[in-house]
Amino acid sequence: MSRQSGMYIEDLSEGQAASFTKTITDADIVLFSGVSGDTNPVHLDADFAAGTMFKERIAHGMLTASLISTVLGTKLPGPGAIYLSQTLTFKAPVKIGDTVTATCTVDTIKAEKRRALIKCICTVKDEIVIAGEAVVLVPSRKS
Amino acid sequence: MSRQSGMYIEDLSEGQAASFTKTITDADIVLFSGVSGDTNPVHLDADFAAGTMFKERIAHGMLTASLISTVLGTKLPGPGAIYLSQTLTFKAPVKIGDTVTATCTVDTIKAEKRRALIKCICTVKDEIVIAGEAVVLVPSRKS
Amino acid sequence: MSRQSGMYIEDLSEGQAASFTKTITDADIVLFSGVSGDTNPVHLDADFAAGTMFKERIAHGMLTASLISTVLGTKLPGPGAIYLSQTLTFKAPVKIGDTVTATCTVDTIKAEKRRALIKCICTVKDEIVIAGEAVVLVPSRKS
Amino acid sequence: MSRQSGMYIEDLSEGQAASFTKTITDADIVLFSGVSGDTNPVHLDADFAAGTMFKERIAHGMLTASLISTVLGTKLPGPGAIYLSQTLTFKAPVKIGDTVTATCTVDTIKAEKRRALIKCICTVKDEIVIAGEAVVLVPSRKS
Repeated sequence: MSRQSGMYIEDLSEGQAASFTKTITDADIVLFSGVSGDTNPVHLDADFAAGTMFKERIAHGMLTASLISTVLGTKLPGPGAIYLSQTLTFKAPVKIGDTVTATCTVDTIKAEKRRALIKCICTVKDEIVIAGEAVVLVPSRKS
Repeated sequence: MSRQSGMYIEDLSEGQAASFTKTITDADIVLFSGVSGDTNPVHLDADFAAGTMFKERIAHGMLTASLISTVLGTKLPGPGAIYLSQTLTFKAPVKIGDTVTATCTVDTIKAEKRRALIKCICTVKDEIVIAGEAVVLVPSRKS
Repeated sequence: MSRQSGMYIEDLSEGQAASFTKTITDADIVLFSGVSGDTNPVHLDADFAAGTMFKERIAHGMLTASLISTVLGTKLPGPGAIYLSQTLTFKAPVKIGDTVTATCTVDTIKAEKRRALIKCICTVKDEIVIAGEAVVLVPSRKS
Repeated sequence: MSRQSGMYIEDLSEGQAASFTKTITDADIVLFSGVSGDTNPVHLDADFAAGTMFKERIAHGMLTASLISTVLGTKLPGPGAIYLSQTLTFKAPVKIGDTVTATCTVDTIKAEKRRALIKCICTVKDEIVIAGEAVVLVPSRKS
């Protein structure tokens, strides 16, 4: 009953890109705290956060990073691909109300292994807040 | 008004470890989908998931990975540390009802740079489902 | 622009009762963890909970207790009343899927002070899981 | 398989204290309303709230009180303790954006009964918004 609805490895080409954008709200932070159990005060306690280099509450880095998974899992390559690995460099904080765009760009395709290396960035306005690389296993039309 | 409540770089030692355990439920998956926008059917559509190699709905890899951030942000080193980078290798799926333990172990400390390399694994029973490494910037008592 | 929509102290009589019923689900527990920051493993970690006297994950006591506040704030006396105090005795655990009924019964009215003492119980089937008393300050038609 | 990770009764001493701090946001209020069913307009309806003595929407008293449970369940005494009772006096409203600190201080220990009486306050800046007492049953190293 498999209904492959994402892309096949044969559909991918280097430089191909897709993105997903979401405003990070306070509700996201509360919900992410519940799901992850991460109650770090830099996310939840405005007084604590005011005393840090960030000066205000910031989003969990993994919350922002989850937007990368959204692009990979719903757009490029989309459903049917298997997430093998991800690297993440956290470059700048995301504050409440920031609108984050995760953009994934196909870098290298190893068709025989059905693998693609995908460059991932998350940006707020023009600033890169997260950079990383994903490797995904992608279905082939040949198998 | 900074209230450093986590560990200082001087408090860390190689081999030091901490963990956080949480059962991954259907509610976590729904809420994580809402927060991330990741509506990949392998997480939300039981019929689709039945046709994949996983045979049933699985948790978002980044949801499981978020438990690593919980350990780093609340226990080792805890509040005050800054998350610089994370690598993640997704080794096995996490199914609804699985109880996941994220364990972080200090690997290497660069005191002069206030950085620690921390090995991270997520396990279900004795199986490693995610392995990776984090780099964190940790406050120093000297500055 | 005050729109008193709840009861006045003159509307209350001893023995008057109201109740609210809700099934406690796993989603409630995840959300309550996020809102409260309470990540006690007896609520979130099925393996930990299996080793306790409860044998399985249980709801936060304050989550169940919050249903009392629902009765007081929406039904008896309803909007306009001010919550002065609450006592709570936790008598039995609430498990995921349990349907809890909070029932509040007017015990004593001090009309001149605009105060009512209200007996509160939360039940699952016929078992009392929480018992307590609330004191509320209730608007008067005379002022 | 019990993994006692909190404190034992023998670890407690009178005057010992722990606290948890969280900024109460609009998202908390919405989510708490959903979890509890408490749709009292003083929490959700800005027009109604403007006509009350509070002049603006306030947090559910039980939401603020839940931070006490966070201290008891995660810090002092932490996982493994059983919540027997709680008294709460609501002394002042908590408004959206207020940062609340729940502080629990061991008052009396009855080692032979494995019980501790714990004084609990919630404060916003220096004002006490809730005061109360909890009784917890705490594991013993001797049993």
